[in-house]
Amino acid sequence: MRYSEMFLPTEREVPSDAEVISHQLMIRAGMIRKLTSGIYSYLPLGYRVIRKVEQIIREEMNRAGAEEVYLPMVQPRELWEESGRWTLYGKELLRFKDRHDRESCLGPTHEEVITDLVRHEIKTYRQLPRILYQIQTKFRDEIRPRFGVMRCREFSMKDAYSFDAGEDGVDISYRKMFDAYNRIFTRCGLKFRPVEADTGSIGGSFSHEFMVIADSGEDSIVFCSACDYAANLEKAEVSVPEKGDHQEDVFLPFEEIITPNVKRIEELCSFLHVTPEDIIKTLIYEADDIPVAVLVRGDDEVNEIKVKNYLGCNSLTMATEDMIYDVTGAPRGFAGAVGIKAKIIADYSLMNRTNFVMGANKKDYHIKNVNVGRDFDVNAFADLRIARNTDLCIRCRGALKFARGIEVGHVFKLGEKYSRAMNATYLDQNGKEQFMVMGCYGIGIGRTVAASIEQNHDGNGIIWPLPIAPYHVMITPVNVKDESVRRASESLYFDLSEKNIEVILDERDERAGVKFMDADLVGIPLRVTIGSKKLSRETVEVKIRKSGEVIDVSLEGIVNFITRFIREDV
Amino acid sequence: MRYSEMFLPTEREVPSDAEVISHQLMIRAGMIRKLTSGIYSYLPLGYRVIRKVEQIIREEMNRAGAEEVYLPMVQPRELWEESGRWTLYGKELLRFKDRHDRESCLGPTHEEVITDLVRHEIKTYRQLPRILYQIQTKFRDEIRPRFGVMRCREFSMKDAYSFDAGEDGVDISYRKMFDAYNRIFTRCGLKFRPVEADTGSIGGSFSHEFMVIADSGEDSIVFCSACDYAANLEKAEVSVPEKGDHQEDVFLPFEEIITPNVKRIEELCSFLHVTPEDIIKTLIYEADDIPVAVLVRGDDEVNEIKVKNYLGCNSLTMATEDMIYDVTGAPRGFAGAVGIKAKIIADYSLMNRTNFVMGANKKDYHIKNVNVGRDFDVNAFADLRIARNTDLCIRCRGALKFARGIEVGHVFKLGEKYSRAMNATYLDQNGKEQFMVMGCYGIGIGRTVAASIEQNHDGNGIIWPLPIAPYHVMITPVNVKDESVRRASESLYFDLSEKNIEVILDERDERAGVKFMDADLVGIPLRVTIGSKKLSRETVEVKIRKSGEVIDVSLEGIVNFITRFIREDV
Repeated sequence: MRYSEMFLPTEREVPSDAEVISHQLMIRAGMIRKLTSGIYSYLPLGYRVIRKVEQIIREEMNRAGAEEVYLPMVQPRELWEESGRWTLYGKELLRFKDRHDRESCLGPTHEEVITDLVRHEIKTYRQLPRILYQIQTKFRDEIRPRFGVMRCREFSMKDAYSFDAGEDGVDISYRKMFDAYNRIFTRCGLKFRPVEADTGSIGGSFSHEFMVIADSGEDSIVFCSACDYAANLEKAEVSVPEKGDHQEDVFLPFEEIITPNVKRIEELCSFLHVTPEDIIKTLIYEADDIPVAVLVRGDDEVNEIKVKNYLGCNSLTMATEDMIYDVTGAPRGFAGAVGIKAKIIADYSLMNRTNFVMGANKKDYHIKNVNVGRDFDVNAFADLRIARNTDLCIRCRGALKFARGIEVGHVFKLGEKYSRAMNATYLDQNGKEQFMVMGCYGIGIGRTVAASIEQNHDGNGIIWPLPIAPYHVMITPVNVKDESVRRASESLYFDLSEKNIEVILDERDERAGVKFMDADLVGIPLRVTIGSKKLSRETVEVKIRKSGEVIDVSLEGIVNFITRFIREDV
Repeated sequence: MRYSEMFLPTEREVPSDAEVISHQLMIRAGMIRKLTSGIYSYLPLGYRVIRKVEQIIREEMNRAGAEEVYLPMVQPRELWEESGRWTLYGKELLRFKDRHDRESCLGPTHEEVITDLVRHEIKTYRQLPRILYQIQTKFRDEIRPRFGVMRCREFSMKDAYSFDAGEDGVDISYRKMFDAYNRIFTRCGLKFRPVEADTGSIGGSFSHEFMVIADSGEDSIVFCSACDYAANLEKAEVSVPEKGDHQEDVFLPFEEIITPNVKRIEELCSFLHVTPEDIIKTLIYEADDIPVAVLVRGDDEVNEIKVKNYLGCNSLTMATEDMIYDVTGAPRGFAGAVGIKAKIIADYSLMNRTNFVMGANKKDYHIKNVNVGRDFDVNAFADLRIARNTDLCIRCRGALKFARGIEVGHVFKLGEKYSRAMNATYLDQNGKEQFMVMGCYGIGIGRTVAASIEQNHDGNGIIWPLPIAPYHVMITPVNVKDESVRRASESLYFDLSEKNIEVILDERDERAGVKFMDADLVGIPLRVTIGSKKLSRETVEVKIRKSGEVIDVSLEGIVNFITRFIREDV
C-alpha cells in the first residue's frame, strides 16, 4: 500500500499508561487503540498481524485434523449451571439479563457450548475422535486489566476441544495438538518453550503451557540444562535428596531463646548468627477447615499448588489468627513444629537437616538445635516448595535453569470433567455408554503478537519476524520531489506488488529521517532506501531491520534479492 | 476431506421449529445448530461457507481501498451517550454492568466506536478520505428471533464506515462501496438487485439496500420494466398523474347516506354499488401532537414513511380515539374530509377524482358525490401511499413490477449525524474546522448465506453457487468394499486434492442411496459417482447439482472435466 493512503497513526511519545514495551510499541506503531479499560480496537496494521497469526493457526489446526467451527459469544445460564461453573466461576464471568430477563454470560471459554453441541450429535465410538476449534472473541472481566492486549478483557482466542473414546484416544489428540502448537509458534518465528504446567485436581503430566521466552515475561519457567525437562515455576518438581544417615550423635542440646522484636528471617539470622538455611519456617494453612503446618527452609518459599495437590484438598488458605492461636498457643509469627497441634508436612529439603532454628510457639521466642525425630515428628516429607536454582532436574539430576516467559498457549487434558457434568456420552464397541474424554487447547492471539514484540524489539521499535510481519518491505524514497527517485520507487513498488510481496511505499513528502523513524518503529523486515546519489549509480540501499545490516543492491537485482530473502526466511 | 472424518451431522427430518427453507436446510445439512433463542453455532460445513463469503468481501473491500480493522464488541455507555443512542436505541441494545458497575452494551453496530477512533487520529483534510471496515460479531436483542440465522440475535456482519471531507467526497466513497457490493454479490453467484431505500431524516437518494431475489423474501421490491429504477416498497415513488381538467360540470349533488353496520371497504362497496376506487379513506394521524388527515383511495394503503417524510415530523402515530373525536366529532371509522378540524393532505391519486364516497364524520353515515374544491379543500397533494402494480415509474413512466427480496446489504450516507454529535472534525484547506461527512455500509454474512439457499435449492436440498460452495466436488464410491471402486475413488481424491480442488470423498460404508441423498442435501456442485459397472469401461458419472444433468466422463478425462467446470464457473 501507499503510506499516505494507510490509516497508520504512529506516535513518537511513549503513552503514559503503557507499562510494558509491547503495549507501548503497539500504540506507537498504530496497531491498537484503547476503547475503555481492557478493551482495544485493532487498527489496520495491528489487524494484519493478527490475521497472519490466525492464518498460521488455521493451517496447522487443519493439518492436525481439527475442524473449524464458530460458537456463540452469548451463552445461556442453563449450560453453565450444568457444568457447575455458573456459581464457581468468579466475577470474571460477565453475567447479564436479556430483554426477556433470561440470564446469560459472555463466553470466557467454550467448554459448555462445545460439549452441548457434541453430546447432541455424537452417539457412538465410530464418530470419535473429533477435534473442533474456533477463532473467536472471549470476554473475561479482569479486575485489573493491564499491559495492553496482554491482559485485557475482550480478546481473540483460538480454542480447540478434543473428544475421544477412552484415555488412549485423548493422549493421541493431545499429542496432535501439542505438535501443532510447536509448529505454530515455530512458524510465527518465536523463541518459545512448552513447559509442564499444573493440572490441578486432574493429575498426570497432561498440561503444557507454551511460553515465549522474554525477559519481561510475567511467568517464571524452569528448565533442565541437560535434558528436555521444562515446567513453569509452580509446577517445577524438585528431585528428592538422597537420604543421609540420621546422625543422632551430632544433635546439639535444644535451646529456647528470647528474640524480642525479631520478625524477619534476616533479623533472626543476624541475631542468632545463622544463615537462612539453618532456619525452618512453619506456615499454618487451613486445608478444607483442617490446620496443617508446612515446614520449609528459611530461604525457600512454599508452593501452595504443590501443598494443595499433595493434600488433595479443595481449598487451601493461610490460617486465621484464631486458628494459629489454637494450634500454637501464640500469635502469628512464632509458629514452630515442636508441640504444635496440627498435621505436619515438611519439604524434602528438611530430610537431612539437623540442629535448626524455628519458632517456639511462644511470643518473642525461638528455639535452636531442633531436630526431627528427637524434638518432633513429621507426618510426611514431600515436594512442597518453589524450585530454586540450586535444585537438580527431577528427571536427570542435571542443573536447573530459570527464565522468564509469556504464556501464549495452553494444552490441557480435561478428562471427563465436562462430559460427566453434562452427560456427554457415546456407546462403545460393546454398546456400553461411556463418557467422552476431552482435552482443551487455547492460544491467545493478541497475546502471541504482544509476546512476539516483547521478544523482538529494540530502542527504535518493533522487529517483526518475517512470517507475521504486517508487510515484508518498506520502500523509502528519500526525496519524492526528485523525479528519478519517484519513478524508481514507483517502479519497484509495482514490481514487488506484482510478485505478491507485501510492500509499503512511503511516498509521503516528509523528511527522510521521519520516514526512517516510522519504518523502524513499525518494524518492517526490509527497508529499501532510494536516494538520488546511489540511484545515479543504479543502486539502492537495503536495510535489514533485524540485524541492522545495510547492503547496496543494484537496481537490476533488487527484486531478486528481496524474493530470495523472503523465501529463505519464511 | 474424507466424509467419515468430518463433523457433518445431516438430518432427514425437517426440524419442527424451522419455518423457512434456508433455516430447515442449514439445520438438515449440518451447517448450524441452535444454542438458544436467536443464537446459533456454526458447524464446520456452515463455517466454510461463511469464510468463503468473508473472503470475497475482504478482497472487494480491499480492492475498493477500504482497510480492515477490528473493533470491540463490548462498548462503554459514555460513547452511546454522546451519540444520543443510549436512550434512543430500544431494547435491542443489550445493556449491562461490568464488575465495577460500569455500564456497557454489546455493539449492535459500530458508528460510535469508529467515530471515536477516527476523531482522535484524523486532524486534517490531508488524512481524508478514509474507509475502514471490519468483520465482527454483532448482537441485537431481537424481541422475536426467527428464520434461523436470517433474523437472529448474535450474527456476523461486515460493516464499513467512510469519512470524507465534504459532500463530494462522501459521494465518491458511497459509489466505491456501492460498486464493491455489486461485485461482492455477483461473485457470490447471487441474483440480486440494489434498490433505493428510505433515508429517513437525512434525505437524498443516498441509501440502497441490496436485495437477493427470492419468493420467500420478507421484503417487497419494486422495479421498472423499462429503466433501471428499483426501490423497496416503502421507498418506491409514484409518478404524479397529469393534472386533468377540473370538470365542475360533472359534480353530482352531495348526499349523506345512513350506512349502519357497514365497516369495511368491501361492505361499503356492495352497499353503495361502487368500487373501492370510488371511495376515499380518511386516516387521522398524530404528527408531533398535531392531527393530520391523510386521504387515499379505498384500494390504496397509506405509506407512513412517505407521510412522515412529507410532514418532516419526528413522530407519526395513528390518532387516539380522543383525538379522532375531537377533529371529527364521531368515533373511529367514520372520518371524512368534509368539515374535519385537521390539516388535510391527499395522495396524488385523488387529484383527478370526482364524486367520491367518504366518511361523514358522523356515526353510521357516509357521504356520496364528494368533490375537492366544492366540498372541502386539501392543504396539499403528495405521494403518500404504497405503490401498486398499475403505477408508472417515477423516472420513465414505464410499468412498475414487483418482486420479493431478502435484504443482505445496505449502503447509507450518514452525513454529519455522528460527526456532529461526537465532534469528529478536521481542518479544511483553509484551516477551518469542519465536520467529517460519513457513510456506513453493512453486509449480513449469515444472512447472505441463508438468502443464497432461499434462492438456490430444490426439494432435495441446497444447490450452492460454486463460488461459495463449501466444497466443489463430492466423490461417491457406490460400494467401498469393491476394491477397484475404492482404489479409483482414492486415486481421484488424491488427484483433485493435489490440484487444490476442494473435495469430499464419501468413503462411508453406506448404501449408495444414503450417500446420494446426503450429497444432494449438502448441495456440492459436482458429484462424481464411481460404480463398478461403468468403472469396468473406464468411465465415471458426473452429476451437476444445479442442472441435474448426468454426464459419463472417461476416467482419464475426469480431472480435466472438473477443473474446466470450476474455472468456467468461478
